[in-house]
Amino acid sequence: MRIDVGIVGGTGYTGVELLRLLAQHPHARVRSITSRKDAGTRVSDMFPSLRRRYDDLVFAEPDKAGLADCAFVFFATPHGVAMAQARELVGAGVRIIDLAADFRLKDPALFERWYKMPHACPDLLAESVYGLPEVNREAIRKARIVGNPGCYPTAVQLGFLPLLEAGAVDVKHLVADCKSGVSGAGRKAELNILFAEASDNFAAYGVKGHRHHPEIAQGLSTAAKSPVSLVFTPHLTPAIRGIFATLYAPLVKPELDLQALYEKRYAGEPFVDVMPAGSAPDTRSVRASNVLRLAVHRPAGSDMAMVLAVEDNLVKGAAGQAIQNMNLMAGLPETTGLEALPVLP
Amino acid sequence: MRIDVGIVGGTGYTGVELLRLLAQHPHARVRSITSRKDAGTRVSDMFPSLRRRYDDLVFAEPDKAGLADCAFVFFATPHGVAMAQARELVGAGVRIIDLAADFRLKDPALFERWYKMPHACPDLLAESVYGLPEVNREAIRKARIVGNPGCYPTAVQLGFLPLLEAGAVDVKHLVADCKSGVSGAGRKAELNILFAEASDNFAAYGVKGHRHHPEIAQGLSTAAKSPVSLVFTPHLTPAIRGIFATLYAPLVKPELDLQALYEKRYAGEPFVDVMPAGSAPDTRSVRASNVLRLAVHRPAGSDMAMVLAVEDNLVKGAAGQAIQNMNLMAGLPETTGLEALPVLP
Amino acid sequence: MRIDVGIVGGTGYTGVELLRLLAQHPHARVRSITSRKDAGTRVSDMFPSLRRRYDDLVFAEPDKAGLADCAFVFFATPHGVAMAQARELVGAGVRIIDLAADFRLKDPALFERWYKMPHACPDLLAESVYGLPEVNREAIRKARIVGNPGCYPTAVQLGFLPLLEAGAVDVKHLVADCKSGVSGAGRKAELNILFAEASDNFAAYGVKGHRHHPEIAQGLSTAAKSPVSLVFTPHLTPAIRGIFATLYAPLVKPELDLQALYEKRYAGEPFVDVMPAGSAPDTRSVRASNVLRLAVHRPAGSDMAMVLAVEDNLVKGAAGQAIQNMNLMAGLPETTGLEALPVLP
Amino acid sequence: MRIDVGIVGGTGYTGVELLRLLAQHPHARVRSITSRKDAGTRVSDMFPSLRRRYDDLVFAEPDKAGLADCAFVFFATPHGVAMAQARELVGAGVRIIDLAADFRLKDPALFERWYKMPHACPDLLAESVYGLPEVNREAIRKARIVGNPGCYPTAVQLGFLPLLEAGAVDVKHLVADCKSGVSGAGRKAELNILFAEASDNFAAYGVKGHRHHPEIAQGLSTAAKSPVSLVFTPHLTPAIRGIFATLYAPLVKPELDLQALYEKRYAGEPFVDVMPAGSAPDTRSVRASNVLRLAVHRPAGSDMAMVLAVEDNLVKGAAGQAIQNMNLMAGLPETTGLEALPVLP
Repeated sequence: MRIDVGIVGGTGYTGVELLRLLAQHPHARVRSITSRKDAGTRVSDMFPSLRRRYDDLVFAEPDKAGLADCAFVFFATPHGVAMAQARELVGAGVRIIDLAADFRLKDPALFERWYKMPHACPDLLAESVYGLPEVNREAIRKARIVGNPGCYPTAVQLGFLPLLEAGAVDVKHLVADCKSGVSGAGRKAELNILFAEASDNFAAYGVKGHRHHPEIAQGLSTAAKSPVSLVFTPHLTPAIRGIFATLYAPLVKPELDLQALYEKRYAGEPFVDVMPAGSAPDTRSVRASNVLRLAVHRPAGSDMAMVLAVEDNLVKGAAGQAIQNMNLMAGLPETTGLEALPVLP
Repeated sequence: MRIDVGIVGGTGYTGVELLRLLAQHPHARVRSITSRKDAGTRVSDMFPSLRRRYDDLVFAEPDKAGLADCAFVFFATPHGVAMAQARELVGAGVRIIDLAADFRLKDPALFERWYKMPHACPDLLAESVYGLPEVNREAIRKARIVGNPGCYPTAVQLGFLPLLEAGAVDVKHLVADCKSGVSGAGRKAELNILFAEASDNFAAYGVKGHRHHPEIAQGLSTAAKSPVSLVFTPHLTPAIRGIFATLYAPLVKPELDLQALYEKRYAGEPFVDVMPAGSAPDTRSVRASNVLRLAVHRPAGSDMAMVLAVEDNLVKGAAGQAIQNMNLMAGLPETTGLEALPVLP
Repeated sequence: MRIDVGIVGGTGYTGVELLRLLAQHPHARVRSITSRKDAGTRVSDMFPSLRRRYDDLVFAEPDKAGLADCAFVFFATPHGVAMAQARELVGAGVRIIDLAADFRLKDPALFERWYKMPHACPDLLAESVYGLPEVNREAIRKARIVGNPGCYPTAVQLGFLPLLEAGAVDVKHLVADCKSGVSGAGRKAELNILFAEASDNFAAYGVKGHRHHPEIAQGLSTAAKSPVSLVFTPHLTPAIRGIFATLYAPLVKPELDLQALYEKRYAGEPFVDVMPAGSAPDTRSVRASNVLRLAVHRPAGSDMAMVLAVEDNLVKGAAGQAIQNMNLMAGLPETTGLEALPVLP
Repeated sequence: MRIDVGIVGGTGYTGVELLRLLAQHPHARVRSITSRKDAGTRVSDMFPSLRRRYDDLVFAEPDKAGLADCAFVFFATPHGVAMAQARELVGAGVRIIDLAADFRLKDPALFERWYKMPHACPDLLAESVYGLPEVNREAIRKARIVGNPGCYPTAVQLGFLPLLEAGAVDVKHLVADCKSGVSGAGRKAELNILFAEASDNFAAYGVKGHRHHPEIAQGLSTAAKSPVSLVFTPHLTPAIRGIFATLYAPLVKPELDLQALYEKRYAGEPFVDVMPAGSAPDTRSVRASNVLRLAVHRPAGSDMAMVLAVEDNLVKGAAGQAIQNMNLMAGLPETTGLEALPVLP
C-alpha cells in the first residue's frame, strides 16, 4: 500500500517535522511539497537534517505541484490558505488535513472574529471534522477534511476532558496556565523569539487574548455540555519543543477518584499516558514523540483538581497528530510510523 | 561609615551573590566568610568572577571567623544553622539576617512539621521580624533578627497583597502557578538539576507539598485577616535566574479598579514596579537586579483577577532583599548599593 | 531473526540511548539490563520516556541478569568493568561491545598510564577490534570483542583520516579544537555540569590532558603511518547533545583537491556525509541520528586545511555506533534500526 | 563634573548596554539617543529593564537630537553611519566613539573591499585612533575619533599580543578558533539566530571570510612588525553573551616562560586578568563585566602555544570598552563606572 502525500507550505517547523515523521512511515510517500517563496530549492539544502533521504524533493510552485493527484494533502501554511484550496482538492478526491486554523472553529462568525477574515467555505467547514482522535475517532475515519487541533488546545482539552465529561468541576472557574517552547511561535524572523531575547528568560504573552482560546472553549464546552469560562494564559519558556499545561478547576464532586477517572477515560488510547498518582511529568519525556502524558492531582488543603499535561508541540501538537489522523482516514493502524520513543536526554 | 559584615556558608549561589552585591555597597565590608568544608580556600579561587576584588578573602572555619565582631551576619546556610548560632551572636550585639527558613514561620510547630527539626530558640523566633520590607518596614529597622523571605514567597506575597488587603478576592480559591530558574535549587550536586536534565525541558516539582507553601499562606492569611486556601505549584524552567509567578483568584469585588489598587499600594516602593495596564513582564527585565515587576489583569470573559510577577530569585528573592533589610536596619537609604540596572540581554 | 541483547550499566545516558535506539531495531530484543545500585527498579520508572515500551524491563543485579545467554552484551559502564567480565562472557559465546575505554587503546601500558589501572586481559585486548566501521569494517564483522570509540575520537578521526591517509598535511602540527554538549560528561551528580553552571556559559576543560588524546593519536598515527603530534582542546558548550570538531593542519600538498579527496574517501559510507564545498555544518543537523557530517575548507590566505565535523555524541559517538557495530557483527545491513532522521528543530 | 553623552542608534544590544553601564557612571549623563525608526518611543517602553532610571529618555530623530551639544557621541549603528556624520560633529567639538567598523581599518581600500562602500572621510580615518587601550592608551587620551574594536578582534588581539610582541611564534600559522554568544549577531530579526535555530546547537559561520579578519590581522601584524597569516573561524554557541577565543601558534622560542611573559605584559592593566598557570577560564566569569580573562598554555607533547581568552562581547567587546575609551579621553580614571563584578551564576 502506498499513500501519496502532498505538503503545502513546507518551509516551517511543522513542514520539516512532517517530513521527518513521514520518512519513518512505511506507506506514505511525499510526492510533492510547495513553497511559493522557495520554489526550486532542494528541501535538503534548506534543512540539512534531511540530506540523503529527501535529496530528490524540491519545493514546487503550488499550482505545479500535482496536489490533485495526491491521496492526502497536509496544509502547513498560515491561516486562510487551506480553505481557499479546499473545494478544488476535495472535488478531485483528495483528503485534506489542515494544520492551521481554517477548520477548527465550527462557527464561521467566531472564525472571522479571531482571524480577521471571512470563512471561504462554510459548507466544507460544516462537514469537516475536528481532528482530536481521542474525541472524534470515528468521524475522522470518514472525513474528507480534518481540522488538526492547535498545540495548546490538544494539551488543554485532553487534560480537562475527563473532569468535564464527568461533571466533576465548576466549569465557570477553569484555569489553564500553559507554557510553550519557542518553536511554537513558528519559523519566522521576529525579534521576540530571537535566541538573545528568549533564552534565559520566561515571559507571558497574548495576555489580551490568544486565538487558541475560542478553540479550547469550544472543545471544553462540548465536553461539559454547557458553556465554560476559562482563563488561558500562554507563556514562553526557553526550550525548543514542548508544551506544559497546568490546569486548575474547583471540584464539585470531591468524592470522585480522579486517578481512576483518568485511567478509565484513556484506557486503550495509544498516545495518552496517564501517569501514576503523584507523578510530575516533564516535557522532555515526550520530546520528538506523539505521546501526551498527564498526571492528575488533588492539592492538599484545597478543593481543587490540578492536571499536569505535557506534549511535544510539533508532534502530538501538530505533525504527529496529523499523521495519526491520516492513519485513521486511511484505515491503517493508528500508530503507524509514530512509534519512535522520545529523545531523552 | 563602615559596616563590618560576616557571611556564614558562602559557597552557594546566595553567598556568591551577596559578595557580588556587597562589592557595590559603599559602606559594607565583608570581614569574614565561613565554610567548614572549604576552609582555607580563597573565595576567588572557587569563584573566578570575584578575582581582583576579593583576593584576600579566604573561607574560614566558622569558629575562627570572628563573627561576633561583625555588625551584621548573613546566614546563607541550610536550614537549622542560623537558629543554632543566633543566641550567641545576638548576645554579642550582632544583628542577624537569615536567608534560610529558621526565622520565617512564626509558629514553631509549623516549622517543625515542615523542616523535620524542633526550633532551637522559640523566644528569638518570637522577636524576629519577617524581612519583607513592603510589609514590615518599620519593624525591620529595629530588628535584631530578620528572617529573609524565600524566593517564591516574595513574589507570591507581593503579587497577591493588594487584592487581599482590599478584600477583593475569594481567599478560598487562590492559585499560584510559579516558575523558577534552576539556580533556585541551589549549588548542589544533584541529578535533576544537571544541564542535560534541566535544559530544553519544563517540569513541575514538589507536587506533594513545598516548604514555601506554609510561608506564603502565613503572609497571605495575615494580609487577608483570615486563613487562605492556596494551590501553589512550583515548576522548573530552563533559565539560570528568575521567578515568574502567575497568580489567579476569583474576584468578589468586580467593580474594583485593579490597576489603581496596585499603583496606590506600591506608590513609593523603591523595588516594586507596577507596570502599565496590559503589560506582560518577563524575568530578564529584572535579571541581576533587586526589582520585582508586576502586572495585574482581568482576563476577558472571566470573573478572575490575574497577576504576573517577576523577580530575580537570587536578588529580590534572596541576597538583594537581605541587603535591603540590612540597609533598613543600619539606618541607610534602602536602595544603597542596590541600584544597578538589570542585565539585558 | 531475533538477537538477544544485554546491557550492563544501564542508568547513564549511553544506556538509555541504547534502549531508545534498540526499540527501533527490528531484530534486537533487550533481554536484560543491569544496575547494582538500582536493581529492582523498573527502567521506565527511572526514565518515563521509556514508558509503554519497556514496562516489563527491570534493572537486575549483574550476576542474576543471565548475560551469558545473550548474543550480544553492551557495556555502558565506567572504565574497568568490561575487561573484568570479558573472559567469562566470551567463553560463553557472548560477543561484547564495550562503550567504555577498556578495549580502545591497543597498548596496555598506555591504558594503564591514562586510566590508572592495569589492564585485566591483555590477550583479549590484543584480539579485540577498535569499532570504527569506516576504518575496521571487515575486522569488526568477525570480532568477539569490540572497543567502541569515544565520542571525540570518532569525530576527530573521521575528520582527519582522508588528509592523513593521503599524506596531505604536516602531522606534527595537528590541532583539534572540539566542543561537546554537556551530556558527554555523563549522568553524574557533579557541580560543574549543573544547569546553573553550564548554561549561558562556554568553557575549556581537560587542558592538562584528556583521556581521549591517546585514543585519537593512536588512530591518527595509524592512518598517517607515522606518529602524529596533536593539540586536542575539549570545550563544553551549553547544548545537551552534539560534538563539533574544528580541525586544523598545515597542508604539505597544497595542490590537492580536498573536496574530491573527502568525497572519494567516504563514498558509499552510510553514516558519513561529506557536505558540499563551502558548507558550515551544525550539530542539530545530526541530533539524535547516527550521521556524522563534515565539510572541508582551505581558508583564504593560509596554507592550512580546516575540517568541520559534527556528530551526536550519544549516537555516532556512542550508542548508535555500538549498534552499527552489532549489525556488522550479526551480518545485518549496517543501517538496520539506525535510519531515523535527525530531530530538527 | 558632568559629561553630556549622545547615543546614535540606540535600539540594538550595544545601545541598551551603553545605557545600562552609563547609568552606573558617576559623571556621564545621557542627553539624547536617536532612532529614526522608533523616534517618539520611550526608551523604557522598548526595554523595560530601564524603567525608573530612564523614564524621561525618548528616542529622537537624529537631526533633532542636539548631538552637537554633547561632549561625546557614541555610534551604535550599522557600518557607514558614523563616517557620514563625523566631520560635522568633530567640527562642533564633539568627540566620537564609533562602535561600528568605520574607524577600525586604517587602509580605506581595505575598508571598501570588506564593507562594500567607499570610506567617506579618509582624512578623519587617518587621524582616528583604534580604541584598544592596552595598545593605544596614550593616543586614545587625545583622540577626537576613536574606532572601538570589534568583539572578536578585542579577544584575539589581547590573546596573541604578548606572543607576537616577543617574537615567540611562527606568525605564518596562527589559528584563532572563536566562539561567540548569539547577542554578537545583534538585535535583528533573522532566521538563523532564532531561539529554535540557535538553541541546543553549535555551528560555524562566516567560513568564507568574516569582516573581523582584516581588523585582527591589522592589529597582529602591527604587533609582530610583519604580516601575519591567520586562520580565523567564528562559531555560534548557544549563550546570550560571551566570546571564547582559543588561539594556537607554533612556538619558535620554546624556552620562553609564557606565564611570565603574559603576567608582565598585562601587569597593571585594570581589565586584563592573566589567570594562574593551568587555568581554564569560562565566559560566565566575565559576564556583564569589562574584564578579559586569559590563560596561556603549552600543550603536552607539542611545540605549540595555546591561549584561552574570554570576554563579554557586549562589554569589553563593545559598550564597556567604549566607556573605557571615553574615560581615557575625558581624563577620568580608566575604570570609572566599570567596576561592577561579573554576574555569576
